[in-house]
Amino acid sequence: MYLETIKKPNDIKNISPDHYTELAAEIRQFLIENVSRTGGHLASNLGVVELTMALHLVLDFPEDKLIWDVGHQTYTHKILTGRADGFANLRQFGGMSGFSRRRESDCDAFDTGHSSTSLSVGLGYVYARELSGGSNNVISVIGDGALTGGLAYEALNNAARLKSNFIIVLNDNKMSISRNVGGISRMLNEVRTSGKYYDLKEKVQDRLERVDGGDELIQKLKKTKANIRSMVTPHTIFDGLGITYLGPINGHDVNEMTRVLRTAMRIDHAVVIHVVTKKGMGYPPAEKSPSRFHGVGPFDIATGNSLKESGPTYSSALSDAICDLAKEDDKIVAITAAMSGGVGLKRFSHAFPRRFFDVGIAEQHAVTFAGAMAVAGYKPVFAVYSSFLQRAYDEMLHDVCLQHAHVVFAIDHAGLVGSDGETHQGIYDISFLSSIPGMTIFAPKNAWELKEGLRFALEEFNGPIAIRYPKGEVKNIYMDSRQRIMAGKAEILEHGEDVAMLAVGDMVDEAGKAAEILKDYGIRATVVNVRFVRPFDRLLLRRLAATHKLLVPMEDNCRTGGFAEAVCAWAELEDLKCRILPVTLPDAYIEQGSIGQLRKLYGCDAAGVALRIRKELDAEEGRIEVV
Amino acid sequence: MYLETIKKPNDIKNISPDHYTELAAEIRQFLIENVSRTGGHLASNLGVVELTMALHLVLDFPEDKLIWDVGHQTYTHKILTGRADGFANLRQFGGMSGFSRRRESDCDAFDTGHSSTSLSVGLGYVYARELSGGSNNVISVIGDGALTGGLAYEALNNAARLKSNFIIVLNDNKMSISRNVGGISRMLNEVRTSGKYYDLKEKVQDRLERVDGGDELIQKLKKTKANIRSMVTPHTIFDGLGITYLGPINGHDVNEMTRVLRTAMRIDHAVVIHVVTKKGMGYPPAEKSPSRFHGVGPFDIATGNSLKESGPTYSSALSDAICDLAKEDDKIVAITAAMSGGVGLKRFSHAFPRRFFDVGIAEQHAVTFAGAMAVAGYKPVFAVYSSFLQRAYDEMLHDVCLQHAHVVFAIDHAGLVGSDGETHQGIYDISFLSSIPGMTIFAPKNAWELKEGLRFALEEFNGPIAIRYPKGEVKNIYMDSRQRIMAGKAEILEHGEDVAMLAVGDMVDEAGKAAEILKDYGIRATVVNVRFVRPFDRLLLRRLAATHKLLVPMEDNCRTGGFAEAVCAWAELEDLKCRILPVTLPDAYIEQGSIGQLRKLYGCDAAGVALRIRKELDAEEGRIEVV
Repeated sequence: MYLETIKKPNDIKNISPDHYTELAAEIRQFLIENVSRTGGHLASNLGVVELTMALHLVLDFPEDKLIWDVGHQTYTHKILTGRADGFANLRQFGGMSGFSRRRESDCDAFDTGHSSTSLSVGLGYVYARELSGGSNNVISVIGDGALTGGLAYEALNNAARLKSNFIIVLNDNKMSISRNVGGISRMLNEVRTSGKYYDLKEKVQDRLERVDGGDELIQKLKKTKANIRSMVTPHTIFDGLGITYLGPINGHDVNEMTRVLRTAMRIDHAVVIHVVTKKGMGYPPAEKSPSRFHGVGPFDIATGNSLKESGPTYSSALSDAICDLAKEDDKIVAITAAMSGGVGLKRFSHAFPRRFFDVGIAEQHAVTFAGAMAVAGYKPVFAVYSSFLQRAYDEMLHDVCLQHAHVVFAIDHAGLVGSDGETHQGIYDISFLSSIPGMTIFAPKNAWELKEGLRFALEEFNGPIAIRYPKGEVKNIYMDSRQRIMAGKAEILEHGEDVAMLAVGDMVDEAGKAAEILKDYGIRATVVNVRFVRPFDRLLLRRLAATHKLLVPMEDNCRTGGFAEAVCAWAELEDLKCRILPVTLPDAYIEQGSIGQLRKLYGCDAAGVALRIRKELDAEEGRIEVV
Repeated sequence: MYLETIKKPNDIKNISPDHYTELAAEIRQFLIENVSRTGGHLASNLGVVELTMALHLVLDFPEDKLIWDVGHQTYTHKILTGRADGFANLRQFGGMSGFSRRRESDCDAFDTGHSSTSLSVGLGYVYARELSGGSNNVISVIGDGALTGGLAYEALNNAARLKSNFIIVLNDNKMSISRNVGGISRMLNEVRTSGKYYDLKEKVQDRLERVDGGDELIQKLKKTKANIRSMVTPHTIFDGLGITYLGPINGHDVNEMTRVLRTAMRIDHAVVIHVVTKKGMGYPPAEKSPSRFHGVGPFDIATGNSLKESGPTYSSALSDAICDLAKEDDKIVAITAAMSGGVGLKRFSHAFPRRFFDVGIAEQHAVTFAGAMAVAGYKPVFAVYSSFLQRAYDEMLHDVCLQHAHVVFAIDHAGLVGSDGETHQGIYDISFLSSIPGMTIFAPKNAWELKEGLRFALEEFNGPIAIRYPKGEVKNIYMDSRQRIMAGKAEILEHGEDVAMLAVGDMVDEAGKAAEILKDYGIRATVVNVRFVRPFDRLLLRRLAATHKLLVPMEDNCRTGGFAEAVCAWAELEDLKCRILPVTLPDAYIEQGSIGQLRKLYGCDAAGVALRIRKELDAEEGRIEVV
């Protein structure tokens, strides 16, 4: 009823403070109903309803700049900027993004998706304002989880010397996707539980003033810049850096937050407002299991249960495999960057707590730490999503591969990931991993091969190795093909004579299906499970090139620097006579959509591949022209 | 005299404390004499002579693990572990490394070269010790500069929850390579200048005890975990994170340091010892100009003057170009990550202080910050060494290129860098930049073209663009060739008919010289200055392929993902009839040595290229077999 009156940015200001509670309830209802239907991020969005309202009450859009870290918690922001209709197609192909997108609204200041960037972006806007003589507000919202990322700290160090206003809202919900860890987390916990420190503060100052020399002491304390307030509250790193700290305040009290925000706007340097929120607030199943409701598929509102049963996933295969192997080999340790659930390390963390390391949202540290543990004689497995591993390119290059360290990268969500869109597609890892000297890249075709590949990597192999596998369910037409894994060797699944498909990982399934389609056209296809993307099986490829008309490298990676390009470059230098048809994703940012939709769009599904192969073979035989 | 008695690790323990001062003086003398002859890192090494001695007095090598951040300050450590002889060939081809290298000594715990890694490495060793039930010490030494890097902070956040000893020695010399900046720097400065805080502390506790309710207040304060000591010292972020802080102590007093180190070893969690040192200590020219003596070539000891005059460099060309352009265009801003001198931004920083940003050793923040400034309407130039840019791969992908932000990356030290060796070679940037959708890569052949390229990038181009150029002097046989830069177009420098060399950046010079050599053999070479590495000039290459027997892409980048590989892959798919001979560096970590030596070693110098071309052409004509 109040929600309906909000049609465009700033409309919320027409609503009377008396009705904030109702508005918040309506927004929550709207979010729960929509996300239960489309899937999406829920717990974090329910947590920031009042915070978003307060921010919209004090800011003027689009002049003022509001930067949300990661951006998965912007649903209320989207509603309040007139995008409620977009929820009909949230995170669907062609629909509204689940993150901040400038193309959707001039109230979205930056395109986001990865953690810990919002302070750097905010500083960019602040300095642009200073240079252009503007007077707009800039507010960055960052979670306590994101604050464990080094990028956020680099920005804090720079924010500390600002001489104009910059408001950092620390949205403290005690969670990354997993529960938070480390010194930052402990610090915030101490602040939260330190009680009524404002009273205490007055008491100390009061007492010191009443004793001999107390005044002088207070002055001395002030001179050392140890703020008198700090005497009685636990230290925060913000104080340490010289950034004003306000809080903690209740993140579900709109009026308190608008009051503190307006105070903070008068400060002439960087200021942190510590807001305590509850993930999942207002929806009992999400309050109870915030990790599960971080990102969800469609669910039943009454029970919170998923509407779709999902089959066995690659993550669960990793979970089984690493637990089995760790029982036999006490040198195996596992590392996650705040994603123990997502990457399948929950069970390991319970079974082997001393050998499990959740380092926070800190991929760089995870990799260097893994390198050192390997040099010290252990066998670390860093399980991580492909797109998050991008943060640690330098560390893989220097702190793992330069050391010839035996680190296993278990790279989940490699390839297309679907509805998270541009920032989460794992379609660059083959490229960036290939440019690192000494890195071996293995891609399993199914769950058995992931398990067997992990065993190979840990027990037969010695050196840096990446095992990349896709998001979600294991679905594969070659479930029973279980040839032994041998270093650098591919697996032949079908023998044909016309075309040889060289499929990487999840593309084996599409290749197999394409081979079926091609049969109907009298084309006999060889299907190869590449397995070792780097170094690839040159011996086999040379043989296949000599006996087939066409080689078709297939991968769910971008073109440049990928497997297909490596095969093409090698074939050119080898002067192979066989033609090559590369099936890859384009060198682009791939939009959201189901994996099936996107594969089809880019001609990488079985039907598309079969069609392209037919055209290529026909062109070769002069029957049709390829356009 | 004392130095001579040190032949192997732990020998320093045989020296009487009475002679520490003499030993330190001898070490300094040794360092100054050797570095004046070979070149190397001087100021940082002179700063840590006593610190290194103290560490060697309390540690047992190789059981105990000592990790130096970056590793350029390990010269005294090398001497004390029996490697004094190695200084004869320090940083020379085949000689001793200027950084930590495990292959040199089992007292080097990790191969290092980049900043901010030592805490993560230390944690790896600490947890390895815990899991294996060991009792060795682990000490990481990190500079205050390195502490501005996010990776160090990620590690600190993890160190905070350690339940066993881990000593972090904070070597505070107020410098990165440039002077330090930001909140961390201010914090350390406050601690250093806060005076006799131990007295103050006692005073406060004393007074509170004497007043009514004071005891209760003290208990309350203790309960909030605000350590009573913290009431009177400025906050450090270490306190904030819950890490014990000891200091500041005098980093030139061996006895004080050994005392504090032994105390720290008894603590059952992570502890920071804040040691204040002076860069360049004991050598007046280096004390006066620590930045200049960070890394130096051979110099005259008496005056401190360089022995070799160097000609104009690419960095100075960048300096001129950006200052000229910034005069005309007030949207241009410049960013450095603690390298204003190295990358040629000193003059800009004086001329345009408000538009200059030194963000500390924080490449990730530099890139995301640049992305935001561009989105906000400015034109940021981030000037950075190639190998340091590796830290910001994810940020280039998401926070610049995904935003289509007009950010210019001025990439210095691209290609081989010489004596810094494996960790500093800038031979991966074409590969990792190429895999980023929307990134344009430009490589100028000389100083004029760098200037003109920067003008093009800022004033004619719109979007993310990388300009990569080599370390050091501009030396080029085509100084007068000044064809206008046009997007995506290469420049033809010599017209021949047999072979076409497609040279990237600095390789143009080698190509021109190779063409001269080939003339003597009757081979007429076309020499192309590629300019746009990505996207490259397909039109021209197609034409050249049709009119030449051989294309020779030449680049100072590794093979995989580089320009030559892209040309090969494209040629394969285009079915070009012309052969291709790629001239690249191998997919490897390239050792130290002069650029000339290394080019020769890998067949990338003019003579090597000419020879390879002759062989290839001969093979084609059936005269000789290529082996």
